[in-house]
Amino acid sequence: MSDFNKTLTNAFNNNDSLLCIGLDPVVDRIPKHLHHKDYSIFAFNKEIIEATHDVVMGYKPNSAFYEAEGAGGVEELYKTCRYIKKHYPELLLILDAKRGDIGSTNQGYIQFAFDYLGADAITLHPYLGKEAVKPFLDRKDKGCIFLCRTSNPGAGEFQDLVFYQPERSEESRKLKKLDHSVSPQDDSTLYKTVARNVAENWNSNDNCMLVVGATYPEELSEVRKVVGDMPILVPGIGAQGGDLEKTLKAGLTHDKSGLIITVSRSIIYAGEGEDFAEKARSEATKLNSMINDFRFKK
Amino acid sequence: MSDFNKTLTNAFNNNDSLLCIGLDPVVDRIPKHLHHKDYSIFAFNKEIIEATHDVVMGYKPNSAFYEAEGAGGVEELYKTCRYIKKHYPELLLILDAKRGDIGSTNQGYIQFAFDYLGADAITLHPYLGKEAVKPFLDRKDKGCIFLCRTSNPGAGEFQDLVFYQPERSEESRKLKKLDHSVSPQDDSTLYKTVARNVAENWNSNDNCMLVVGATYPEELSEVRKVVGDMPILVPGIGAQGGDLEKTLKAGLTHDKSGLIITVSRSIIYAGEGEDFAEKARSEATKLNSMINDFRFKK
Repeated sequence: MSDFNKTLTNAFNNNDSLLCIGLDPVVDRIPKHLHHKDYSIFAFNKEIIEATHDVVMGYKPNSAFYEAEGAGGVEELYKTCRYIKKHYPELLLILDAKRGDIGSTNQGYIQFAFDYLGADAITLHPYLGKEAVKPFLDRKDKGCIFLCRTSNPGAGEFQDLVFYQPERSEESRKLKKLDHSVSPQDDSTLYKTVARNVAENWNSNDNCMLVVGATYPEELSEVRKVVGDMPILVPGIGAQGGDLEKTLKAGLTHDKSGLIITVSRSIIYAGEGEDFAEKARSEATKLNSMINDFRFKK
Repeated sequence: MSDFNKTLTNAFNNNDSLLCIGLDPVVDRIPKHLHHKDYSIFAFNKEIIEATHDVVMGYKPNSAFYEAEGAGGVEELYKTCRYIKKHYPELLLILDAKRGDIGSTNQGYIQFAFDYLGADAITLHPYLGKEAVKPFLDRKDKGCIFLCRTSNPGAGEFQDLVFYQPERSEESRKLKKLDHSVSPQDDSTLYKTVARNVAENWNSNDNCMLVVGATYPEELSEVRKVVGDMPILVPGIGAQGGDLEKTLKAGLTHDKSGLIITVSRSIIYAGEGEDFAEKARSEATKLNSMINDFRFKK
């Protein structure tokens, strides 16, 4: 088992949970009594973390919500990440950043996510190919979570396109001496090709995962067929309307694991007053029970 | 002409230049005499900007190099961006961030790039489709620069895949009621499909651009055919080995414009000592002359 997979398995086992909370705070939606604090976003996150750390497998702050507040917001992200890894090192910390640049530049994002914030994993765009994300893949201790079939309504525009690879195309590839790792298939969508390439050719350090939205349970089921037991991160339950039962049915591995069910708004904004963290805990506990009831039902 | 296109045209005309400098500073490569300064990255950038502002059309800081230094690095990025827009508002400021999330989350990146940093344009991943990037597209005053054919050696892994769209696939799309804006073509690569969709369906505010690497002049020529006069950002000249003449031949529009030639390392690290800014100016001037010699030769 790879270094990263040990971290992930520990996180799943720690609270017997597949639930991950998305820490995506918007300043306007943070309860008023926190606004006067020096680091109000961190104060909000800290209360959520303290109230939920024993029912989740990890936390996933989305970088966009912190960057929105500039350098100060990035400091709030830093405090949040460091707090989690200091107090709950057994939980998984995912930086949802959806990054992806050429290889030499990705080094900067690696320093940001892994060295500065201490994240265990990061979400990434696959568009530039394996060669570009190799600096991420080479970090055996860290998880690389590639966008595959995203949760948004218009995700299919490119992701559902169907490929073929005629002879002449094979020829032109050979001429260009490019490393094309796609198995020759007559018929495959882009999202399945991404899934296949990641599973078959990018994962030699056993540290890859995929993102598939809960809003597309059929596609999740297709991806599960392609990638075997590879862990899949699933956003889209809650505010985005994904169906929990369909998701679990489509995505669980044979040992009733292999999914990170990540939920943000419907948990962190479950309450609006001073008891927001209690309300968040109650929502998280309910969701975690629903997930485990499905996993372990007879 | 759209608000953004006016900004872009002014930037091209201001110094009669298509050259953009990538401000991608790595702390280890900044001349030693700057290291003691409070904001050494900003100090480095400021000297480069002061030495080159009259031979370029704009600047393109890549966020990764700043994020590598954490919240402090983001503050250096802030200072750099604000300095450029205060002193040289007529030049184009591109945030090279390669972002791309679902619609509601992209709002955070918009606040970061446009409101906080004051950038005129941002680079984006196309993978999630038009519906996800709509909040960017809706900003008529700002440019959306989508990755199309990237400059890295392995770019073709997905970008060169060839599509087809059989009847049954059309049918399944209709059943899902998804908005698929691809023209029915029997044969097109992913990168050309991205180019076509952006040009034909995403650009109603006339604020879209594409990224095509100088390392692929043939593909640049193909993209130019698909997108007409749409401006194209071209990285890959210099350290990455792209050929300037082939690039200009393949990518210039009929009026000898429409390209942003962006160069980073070979300019900003032209010198290593106290005269680094002078060396950078000399390199930028040389490149700008080579570009304009090609554009205006008889």
